[in-house]
Amino acid sequence: MSTLRLGVFVSGSGTNLQAILDACRTGRIAAQVAVVISNNREAYALERARQAGVPGVYIPAGSRSGSPRWEVADPCHLEVLGDYGVELICMAGYMRRLGPQVLEAYAGRVLNIHPALLPSFIGAHGQRDALRYGVRISGCTVHFADANFDTGPVIIQAAVPVLPDDDEASLAARILQQEHKIYPQAIQWYAQGRLVIEGRHVRVLNARPPTIAEAIINPGLEIF
Amino acid sequence: MSTLRLGVFVSGSGTNLQAILDACRTGRIAAQVAVVISNNREAYALERARQAGVPGVYIPAGSRSGSPRWEVADPCHLEVLGDYGVELICMAGYMRRLGPQVLEAYAGRVLNIHPALLPSFIGAHGQRDALRYGVRISGCTVHFADANFDTGPVIIQAAVPVLPDDDEASLAARILQQEHKIYPQAIQWYAQGRLVIEGRHVRVLNARPPTIAEAIINPGLEIF
Repeated sequence: MSTLRLGVFVSGSGTNLQAILDACRTGRIAAQVAVVISNNREAYALERARQAGVPGVYIPAGSRSGSPRWEVADPCHLEVLGDYGVELICMAGYMRRLGPQVLEAYAGRVLNIHPALLPSFIGAHGQRDALRYGVRISGCTVHFADANFDTGPVIIQAAVPVLPDDDEASLAARILQQEHKIYPQAIQWYAQGRLVIEGRHVRVLNARPPTIAEAIINPGLEIF
Repeated sequence: MSTLRLGVFVSGSGTNLQAILDACRTGRIAAQVAVVISNNREAYALERARQAGVPGVYIPAGSRSGSPRWEVADPCHLEVLGDYGVELICMAGYMRRLGPQVLEAYAGRVLNIHPALLPSFIGAHGQRDALRYGVRISGCTVHFADANFDTGPVIIQAAVPVLPDDDEASLAARILQQEHKIYPQAIQWYAQGRLVIEGRHVRVLNARPPTIAEAIINPGLEIF
């Protein structure tokens, strides 16, 4: 059986990339990472790719705050994705937007993960924004990415408590633990052809009931 | 020991009022409903008040979409709240805003419950908006209400899954089940003097760890 060819976009340390590589290697998901693309030459994710024997490609993509320079990166991305026969794009901590050509060529074939319960706390600082707001529950979301980005159709979410002594690092770590589960799971559903986009809803064919069907209540109850 | 005197604002059927009345009656919370105030003469909540032997007062408060007419309702509210010695206001499905005089007189002493994980899905249709967005996890939030309303400091949240076949009624019922737990719990913390507002954060003194400390993941995992 042929496995789904993934193109993983990264900017940083690449722990989600690692979770995907591990899930591929152990056969939990019917996919392989065909190429890793980074806008950051120094990203540790590229080293993870090297160690896994996966090609890593550095493609500059403009400054974060400046002009996106899609006219440069967009054709490069398309060429590399084509070279490696990528069927599904996985954004894994990629701190840029994809250009319009890539989004058009891969419409319905781009996944993203966000460290918050969308639509709360869109943007680049989901964990910090959740802490500042003072929510008791946050989490993470895997969704299809479209031009509007953090607003694409939701595939899977995980909710975790925010604890009184949390700082950004401890909350990020708690959320990351769930990211490393739900991202490979979403990829596996895609690989199995079980994700059906209906408008802005995603139906997971033959979905299991939620893991832990009850509520998370935070802080904990005392009177019930 | 004297119990905290609550003024509960309602517009509809009053299931949260009922949960509060029950929690008071059974002694789970050290509070009593001193008065129920409704902007809707026909609200079933007023009948619940009557059955519980609690005074119910109808105070018109303008049309929902029209001018708030605070100049009329605001002094009425203040007078009734004063008459019944209300120490804490609990908005429980009250479909109007409180006027500036009440909010000033009761600054830091107004609670509200919202049927979504704030800051997601503010406004009057939290459950419907969550369904339309396509989230996998929603919930409810008890928070201090300020002039900006749905954005006040969060006290407690509960997260529940959104299921594939949910309609607005089934999701609302699942969330309501949690509302009926977290609202009395928040009132009890207030009554015990355990809620400390620090900027836009609320510290619950001696808070228990979350009820169910793990994640809710929805749809359920298959590969982990």
